[in-house]
Amino acid sequence: MELTKQWRDHFKQLRAFDEAISLLYWDMRTQMPEQSAPLRAETIGYLSTEAFKRQTSDSFKQLLEEMEAANGLTATEKRSLQVAKTQYERNAKIPASEYQAYVTLVSEAETAWEKAKEQNDWGMFAPFLKKILTYQRKFADYFGYDAHPYDALLYDFEPGMTVAQLDDLFETLRDELVPLIRNLPGGTASLDWSMNEKAQERICHDWMRVVDYDLSRGRLDATVHPFEITINRRDVRITTKYDEADFRNALFGTMHEAGHATYEQQIDESLDELGLGGGASMGIHESQSLFFENFVGRSIAFLKSVYPNLQAEHHALQDVDFETFYAGVNEAKPSLIRIEADELTYSLHIIIRYELEKALIQGDLSVDELPAAWNKLYKEYLGVDVPSDAKGVLQDVHWAGGSFGYFPSYALGLIYAAQLTESLRAEHPDFETWIATGEFAPIKQWLATNVHRHGKTLTPNELIRTVTGEDISVRPLVRYLTSKYGTA
Amino acid sequence: MELTKQWRDHFKQLRAFDEAISLLYWDMRTQMPEQSAPLRAETIGYLSTEAFKRQTSDSFKQLLEEMEAANGLTATEKRSLQVAKTQYERNAKIPASEYQAYVTLVSEAETAWEKAKEQNDWGMFAPFLKKILTYQRKFADYFGYDAHPYDALLYDFEPGMTVAQLDDLFETLRDELVPLIRNLPGGTASLDWSMNEKAQERICHDWMRVVDYDLSRGRLDATVHPFEITINRRDVRITTKYDEADFRNALFGTMHEAGHATYEQQIDESLDELGLGGGASMGIHESQSLFFENFVGRSIAFLKSVYPNLQAEHHALQDVDFETFYAGVNEAKPSLIRIEADELTYSLHIIIRYELEKALIQGDLSVDELPAAWNKLYKEYLGVDVPSDAKGVLQDVHWAGGSFGYFPSYALGLIYAAQLTESLRAEHPDFETWIATGEFAPIKQWLATNVHRHGKTLTPNELIRTVTGEDISVRPLVRYLTSKYGTA
Repeated sequence: MELTKQWRDHFKQLRAFDEAISLLYWDMRTQMPEQSAPLRAETIGYLSTEAFKRQTSDSFKQLLEEMEAANGLTATEKRSLQVAKTQYERNAKIPASEYQAYVTLVSEAETAWEKAKEQNDWGMFAPFLKKILTYQRKFADYFGYDAHPYDALLYDFEPGMTVAQLDDLFETLRDELVPLIRNLPGGTASLDWSMNEKAQERICHDWMRVVDYDLSRGRLDATVHPFEITINRRDVRITTKYDEADFRNALFGTMHEAGHATYEQQIDESLDELGLGGGASMGIHESQSLFFENFVGRSIAFLKSVYPNLQAEHHALQDVDFETFYAGVNEAKPSLIRIEADELTYSLHIIIRYELEKALIQGDLSVDELPAAWNKLYKEYLGVDVPSDAKGVLQDVHWAGGSFGYFPSYALGLIYAAQLTESLRAEHPDFETWIATGEFAPIKQWLATNVHRHGKTLTPNELIRTVTGEDISVRPLVRYLTSKYGTA
Repeated sequence: MELTKQWRDHFKQLRAFDEAISLLYWDMRTQMPEQSAPLRAETIGYLSTEAFKRQTSDSFKQLLEEMEAANGLTATEKRSLQVAKTQYERNAKIPASEYQAYVTLVSEAETAWEKAKEQNDWGMFAPFLKKILTYQRKFADYFGYDAHPYDALLYDFEPGMTVAQLDDLFETLRDELVPLIRNLPGGTASLDWSMNEKAQERICHDWMRVVDYDLSRGRLDATVHPFEITINRRDVRITTKYDEADFRNALFGTMHEAGHATYEQQIDESLDELGLGGGASMGIHESQSLFFENFVGRSIAFLKSVYPNLQAEHHALQDVDFETFYAGVNEAKPSLIRIEADELTYSLHIIIRYELEKALIQGDLSVDELPAAWNKLYKEYLGVDVPSDAKGVLQDVHWAGGSFGYFPSYALGLIYAAQLTESLRAEHPDFETWIATGEFAPIKQWLATNVHRHGKTLTPNELIRTVTGEDISVRPLVRYLTSKYGTA
């Protein structure tokens, strides 16, 4: 068989496994009868192992070597080879027995974390975190790094990103945000955000139509924890959570996931059989969800266009003028919980986590010192007192899952989204009018051409440079937030 | 690794593939966005091939040989070995290249059949059927047989069943049914069976509650073609079709599928890792769906118990007395279409197909002679004139799918169901009272103990002998139908 055909077949097979595993997972979260859970976990575990075996097998190693020796590869095939080789080498560096033990540990740690959070008992989780950290530091050494062990972990989430760059970006951002937040005006009017589930569902579908989310290649379902999942390139599903006490969660959550999904739907389909069919990075992916959620969804242009419909569904809003509603939707104030934070204060939640996990990985901070360090930074950056570990250091699952290096992606997403929006707006001064009139096709087309279709053929930095002409920069985000939330 | 552990691991892996493939299929029929279809077909094809490879690999062959040489196997392990070995040998007998060509042919034939049926054009389908028959006869020769080539094909559907037995059973049954049908009284009152979908859905759920179908391990969804599918032993799903013109289809269809599902839910879970976790045969499986649909669902006791609720949902029934309703639900009359036939005439549709496909396989009948032979038997057995091939010889997909030997299962299901019901009733004279009062747990328990839990550890005949003390016999079915439909 011709070599590049073999190469493509390898990724076609992985795609088939991916489709099955993604569907098993989606179904588990949305449709599955409760008693199916233990067998479902077994099935997902087995198929994931099968897929992993294919990525680390001797025959794949040989295929890699043959591809490296081959002549006449296209640029995309070369990129495919490079991404696959890096991933193969990272996988191969961890001894199988160690990886097995680590996977078991993480699974136990997640259960321990859930209980610890529920009972507000840091001591129940700390021993697991210590073990996970030991592994993470060992993995960083296996992977190798130049300047900082944390650099080695960042690769899984943001290839090419380094501590040196993040320090610089986040320091600037923090210094700009802290005074902005200090000077926020007092509270906004207290509005009635309650709405029944059926009405929320109708409005979510209405908003999805406005932003032209392609439901012939997707679905919206309800779940406890919202997510986007790619079953295949023409079947990208999202979920949302209907909170009858506050409909903002479902509506903006749906916009967020629709942003992720639109990215996945618009990636060039032919990249799947080269293993280049996902997003460029977690940060770039998050930039697309945040673009839909904030830069479109929370904009005056969009909200004005959908407000009459919303008022018709929600009688409590009928006597509320648009300005009051807009202020309510965009209310910013320092808070304790990351996932409930507004777009202004959100990055500070991330920067706090970044500083802490960087120190943990480097050994500058011990697990026992972590809760106090957490509370200190929340006071310093956000001015809030953390009343309990459950609402503090225990709030997120990421560390229990061993995802060190993941948090920065969320703030990078905001930074990238602001950069991309500035470029889009500069090229197309009609941007606001398009949003106001629900003419979303040209916006989706611009995103497809400049961001989406490339998949993993560009690194995050290559992508941002190509589109904006600059490297990553916090300036556009600072401009956006200052103009929206500044009092000057 | 210990040998029997290796053996069990083989089947555990196949179970994981089965779960993924079944879910991919279920989702395709109930949830999937339309554009996903081509990629979904590719994924199902790939994973099915992977599963098949595991069943026919050299390493599995070696495992089989080691198991055959092993000492100290339990009775269940021995049965597992016997079933797996027979299946392996059947698979191995067909040359891979021939099998590939056959799979492609069948896929083309199904498409051709669909069009031929739509356009009532036998000539569009006949060439495909000729080729399929050539393969089927070749396969029968590969598999080997003693008396009749059709025996070799029956194994896939009804292990142990032979033409000699079927000829005897079906001849008796036909001779009993034909006069019964001739002497049916005239038509019943014409009732309004229309109902909106939501109300039908409520009643289906109501009936499922009455028969204690376990929805914590199942689901009911809507589809064009109803089916039952086992995702795993604790996740057995059914679908139904809501026909707003006639609610009987959805209601009795749901009972039918709930019967299949209850069987699957009650099979001993530990049998899955020995490859013995399905039904004993297609016929036994069908006996369970028909038990729920006819012997329970169309009984006076059950219908009386649910009739008040049904009248409350369906105002057109409020002035209809129970006897008229019962007669309407149990109306029997000769007809053209198998899947619309009542329980009295149904077996004749099957016997006609059996006689025809047996003759085709043996070479006593050519494909060109088939439509005329079909029409002749419909006139002879059912007294109806076939107006077109679309409503005659082209009505079913089975032959296009290469499923020769499948049809007898439907009639065997009725025969088995009647035998099992007689035994159940003899052991438990409370049977009717249980149904009338919705006390379904003891009935499910009896089925679990006597039929369901055994999975494939017993052959159909062993199972029927163990429960009824007799071999397969049409007498109980004849008694049941004569007492329900006889005029004497």
